[in-house]
Amino acid sequence: QQQQRFQTECRINNLNAQEPGRSVESEAGLSEYWNRNDEQFRCAGVDLVRHTIQRRGLLLPSFSNAPQLVYVVQGRGLHGAAIPGCPETFQSESSSQFRGEQGSQRMSRDQHQKVREIREGDIVAMPAGVAHWIYNDGESQLIVMILYDTSNQANQLDENARRFYLAGNPRQQQQGGRQRRRESRQGSRSQSRSRSQSPEERERSQQSGSNLFNGFDEEFLADSFNIDNELAMRIQNRDDQRGIIVTVEDELRVLSPQSRGEEREERGWDRDNGVEETFCTMRLKHNIADPQRADVYNERGGRITSLNSLNLPILRYIQLSAERGVLYRNALVAPLYNMNCHSVIYVIRGNARLQVVGENGQNVFDGEVREGQVLTVPQNFAVIKKAGNQGFEWVAFKTNDNAMINPLAGRLSTMRALPEDVLINAYRIDRQEARSLKYNRDETTLFSSDSSGSSRRRD
Amino acid sequence: QQQQRFQTECRINNLNAQEPGRSVESEAGLSEYWNRNDEQFRCAGVDLVRHTIQRRGLLLPSFSNAPQLVYVVQGRGLHGAAIPGCPETFQSESSSQFRGEQGSQRMSRDQHQKVREIREGDIVAMPAGVAHWIYNDGESQLIVMILYDTSNQANQLDENARRFYLAGNPRQQQQGGRQRRRESRQGSRSQSRSRSQSPEERERSQQSGSNLFNGFDEEFLADSFNIDNELAMRIQNRDDQRGIIVTVEDELRVLSPQSRGEEREERGWDRDNGVEETFCTMRLKHNIADPQRADVYNERGGRITSLNSLNLPILRYIQLSAERGVLYRNALVAPLYNMNCHSVIYVIRGNARLQVVGENGQNVFDGEVREGQVLTVPQNFAVIKKAGNQGFEWVAFKTNDNAMINPLAGRLSTMRALPEDVLINAYRIDRQEARSLKYNRDETTLFSSDSSGSSRRRD
Amino acid sequence: QQQQRFQTECRINNLNAQEPGRSVESEAGLSEYWNRNDEQFRCAGVDLVRHTIQRRGLLLPSFSNAPQLVYVVQGRGLHGAAIPGCPETFQSESSSQFRGEQGSQRMSRDQHQKVREIREGDIVAMPAGVAHWIYNDGESQLIVMILYDTSNQANQLDENARRFYLAGNPRQQQQGGRQRRRESRQGSRSQSRSRSQSPEERERSQQSGSNLFNGFDEEFLADSFNIDNELAMRIQNRDDQRGIIVTVEDELRVLSPQSRGEEREERGWDRDNGVEETFCTMRLKHNIADPQRADVYNERGGRITSLNSLNLPILRYIQLSAERGVLYRNALVAPLYNMNCHSVIYVIRGNARLQVVGENGQNVFDGEVREGQVLTVPQNFAVIKKAGNQGFEWVAFKTNDNAMINPLAGRLSTMRALPEDVLINAYRIDRQEARSLKYNRDETTLFSSDSSGSSRRRD
Repeated sequence: QQQQRFQTECRINNLNAQEPGRSVESEAGLSEYWNRNDEQFRCAGVDLVRHTIQRRGLLLPSFSNAPQLVYVVQGRGLHGAAIPGCPETFQSESSSQFRGEQGSQRMSRDQHQKVREIREGDIVAMPAGVAHWIYNDGESQLIVMILYDTSNQANQLDENARRFYLAGNPRQQQQGGRQRRRESRQGSRSQSRSRSQSPEERERSQQSGSNLFNGFDEEFLADSFNIDNELAMRIQNRDDQRGIIVTVEDELRVLSPQSRGEEREERGWDRDNGVEETFCTMRLKHNIADPQRADVYNERGGRITSLNSLNLPILRYIQLSAERGVLYRNALVAPLYNMNCHSVIYVIRGNARLQVVGENGQNVFDGEVREGQVLTVPQNFAVIKKAGNQGFEWVAFKTNDNAMINPLAGRLSTMRALPEDVLINAYRIDRQEARSLKYNRDETTLFSSDSSGSSRRRD
Repeated sequence: QQQQRFQTECRINNLNAQEPGRSVESEAGLSEYWNRNDEQFRCAGVDLVRHTIQRRGLLLPSFSNAPQLVYVVQGRGLHGAAIPGCPETFQSESSSQFRGEQGSQRMSRDQHQKVREIREGDIVAMPAGVAHWIYNDGESQLIVMILYDTSNQANQLDENARRFYLAGNPRQQQQGGRQRRRESRQGSRSQSRSRSQSPEERERSQQSGSNLFNGFDEEFLADSFNIDNELAMRIQNRDDQRGIIVTVEDELRVLSPQSRGEEREERGWDRDNGVEETFCTMRLKHNIADPQRADVYNERGGRITSLNSLNLPILRYIQLSAERGVLYRNALVAPLYNMNCHSVIYVIRGNARLQVVGENGQNVFDGEVREGQVLTVPQNFAVIKKAGNQGFEWVAFKTNDNAMINPLAGRLSTMRALPEDVLINAYRIDRQEARSLKYNRDETTLFSSDSSGSSRRRD
Repeated sequence: QQQQRFQTECRINNLNAQEPGRSVESEAGLSEYWNRNDEQFRCAGVDLVRHTIQRRGLLLPSFSNAPQLVYVVQGRGLHGAAIPGCPETFQSESSSQFRGEQGSQRMSRDQHQKVREIREGDIVAMPAGVAHWIYNDGESQLIVMILYDTSNQANQLDENARRFYLAGNPRQQQQGGRQRRRESRQGSRSQSRSRSQSPEERERSQQSGSNLFNGFDEEFLADSFNIDNELAMRIQNRDDQRGIIVTVEDELRVLSPQSRGEEREERGWDRDNGVEETFCTMRLKHNIADPQRADVYNERGGRITSLNSLNLPILRYIQLSAERGVLYRNALVAPLYNMNCHSVIYVIRGNARLQVVGENGQNVFDGEVREGQVLTVPQNFAVIKKAGNQGFEWVAFKTNDNAMINPLAGRLSTMRALPEDVLINAYRIDRQEARSLKYNRDETTLFSSDSSGSSRRRD
């Protein structure tokens, strides 16, 4: 059953492919934020950020009032989530590596919640309010694209994505629908800690971001954790200039059972069997780049892989899904519309020409989209994609856990569902033409541009 | 479980029975639109239109971001829906009638999705994003009243009902909550294609409606459908002056298994058995005018037939329901309120005096409603209906798939639920009077005005 | 599965503990209303009122567009609900007490819906649109705190809580989000019936509240109830000056099977067995003050009792839950945040110092809260509570039927879920300090302030 989203304003007359509007550098990486106030993101009710994490960089743990979908654009790393009430199921098998450190023998094992390896093509689903961190343990940059679904039912605050950091001293991370003016001012000083602002300004928006513990008294913290005041002050990270992605001095030593190279999706303890499927053991990630998993494949057109709540059940809980597509040069995705959701397209590689059409046949986008750009196709708006000379790869985040598309051409199209006589009278065409409309494309969704192979007539 | 609706503004101080505010003529019919900006429709989050389709008129296929309930006020016709992913289950048994036409022998059969016969009293439920068309194959006018539920959870766009036409060149169909000023301007020229407007105006609102294909390049369309450019231009219908209801030259030849006169509700292939109940085979229609189906009947008062998700399961999906009532002259519907929904009443025949009361006992409507008018009774507002001399027939669209009413008088009323001592002390009346309040009406919901038969006391 | 709420505005920069902003006296009690326009209540989408009902006072039957949670702060009484469609299951066993009154023998038994005894610590859940009344049959004042959840999915009107009274002549009860200006004017004359206002004013807002029947014609009412016009006028209570809590002359004689002192929660007819669990027989109340029912207990810290849809299934329907806490002097509730809801805290007894921290580590509250005050902790905002010298008791209303908290310290905390190496690098601390953060508090949620007992290290 569909779940409702918060209502947005969707007066889309003109879409633009968007690149990030604001970037913030950290010690070990770069965070780039799309402008939440762009018409298309306000309509879809989403917020987007791309983190580029350097080798040995750690994106500090944070949670949000909005569920998140994380897509790994490039690289590999570790992902840890702290799900409340779930046990610390990862325990070191051998304590040898910790020997010789400060801890006594009985403290030499660490226990923590599950850590996941992530790699290019993975989608990780994060419920609202769950803290998570990402670490780059690969050899190259780790790039992740995160969608915050602020219009999601799980968010009881307003339409602004809020990021609550548990550590570090994040600067200028906040961004919100109604803070337009302030933000443009912030942009210019995003690299400096803005402690110099007037008290009145600070009180109003606390523009200088800092972690959650910063808002408590040291004494209260010391009391809460039963630690001394000095350590309490340390976890407030007040003088920390590293930003939200920090460098790990040695390699981050966490426990992860999976040896590299072995990439089974289903591990023993998170196999869904309908009984054990609790929040604690639910799978949170799924790879959608593997060509073997294509749901639609056309050897001359390309392939599309869908991820929905049937193959990743946590998506039912957060009401989102995703699709990854590869389109060969000059191939087409049939004209289609998303029945029950918006589709937020991020271009991973290559380029394409897209046309998007809204109510009353109004063209709201006709242009090229390139690597690193985002374009939203609102619910019920029709779109045609045609790959450029480099081909076209994209990931689309969808605002429904069971997104449905409705192709207007091809094998499963609306045209085939309509009787010939309706087409004849609607378009004032003859029967032969009606049959061309219905049957000239026998492919499903993905069409090769060279039409010779697809001009078969149905028999 | 109830599903939420989008929040609206409901500052109802004064209701008015409304007739359509705007009408648009087409080649073979008339479309009349209620003013979406009327306080009562903004509160209920609905949009209403009435189509009068001439004999051999075809209402062109369209879909909407809002689920629809269609009530057949008068006449008979055919209804076809194009549900994405569902098979074309209607195939011609004999191709004889198509012989001699352009098609070769192997193309002489048409395949399309199910077509339904509709007749007076039918409710047809349409999910958001599903294209459908209606054809009048009867002998008289076919009149349908359509409610668009724009506050429905399925709509992820804003509160405006958008109608996406797959064919034709609809003019001035759009209407929206925040376009008040523009629309009053549009009203005056609703009969003329407004291609003459300034480019800036056109860009802003594309007031000259046209079908979805109009927004794509001919070349893109030709490529997508694997057809030539000329045919691609034909499906854009750019010079089409026929509007949204077009005349079919010969009779529309579509396949429909049901011979006229045979009117079984349950056909073989859409019987619900809990297993096969998929979107593709779900029943979409149900007749609520048949007196045999009355849920409440009083031989001197009238009858009420309810349609909810228990007797039409698709309603659970679109979260709407309906009620049809017949009230004999001078009879009453008990004072009652809708617990969990709004009730949008359309008067089919006759007249009645209605009183509607809101918070703080404020009377927000006291007057007559007549055939063709609409009056919304908001959630929790109390209403009394008393038929006029001609009797009174109505259909009420309700914004909950399992609408619940709470009568204040009669057999199942709140008064009976309250202890006598509460009534005595609340109204400062004696025990005898309290009993009169509780028991003087022994009927349920429908009361005859002549009270002699109903003044029995309970024993 | 979570259900969505209506979206609110949550720009919380500064919270204040709130006392009621407006009070209205009735014949037999006092009603105190919190200011709905306070930032914290607008964000949470709730409305609060506290009724103090004198001995033999009857709070007149009313219903609302918002579901309600009623918490009995003090005293005992009777609660009756009139659930539409449910049978009158309470019948007098003996009619002796009514003999000699006006009724004839065959009328001597009263039938009505179930009446519940309520006492201090009870939560009563009321769905939207269900009328209910409360009567004080105890020896002392009966004080009830009611939360109206106006952002609930069940409310299809706007964000204002509307109270529809079935009897009496309530004055100045309405209060609404967008009526700010008018209301401040109303405040100054809340004790006087404002019949003296200009007709135009009265028409606009009908400030002089009155019961639902007041908005109907006497004749219509007489016809509807089959009573004479005089009685019809009586139920309009037009000249009634008693307000919404009226004095019952003799004791209110209603049927209630439970003898005082016997306080079994599960009575025979409302035991949930998964089959009979209909709306009519669902339990509506649950006591959360009983120390035996504590879910978290620390002999030096205090106790917390949670009420959610698992122990009171009706809460699943109205999507609310509650928690009652007792904190001993100087004890602490761990720093934590509510994952999936707001928490509206009402202080029952004692005092505490609270710190609340929002996005970017911004402190939005740091101060004392005292008996009778309300403070809202928005979703995902972190809070530490430390009891004062008098100890601290509270009830928290939560806007999710299965509220989840996420402690930041203690046995089930986020700190324990994170690997040591993440803490070390995030806070720039050494391994020993990381272990202190993770393990120095071994208690769950409730911490005694004296840390000696809790400084055990994990082994």
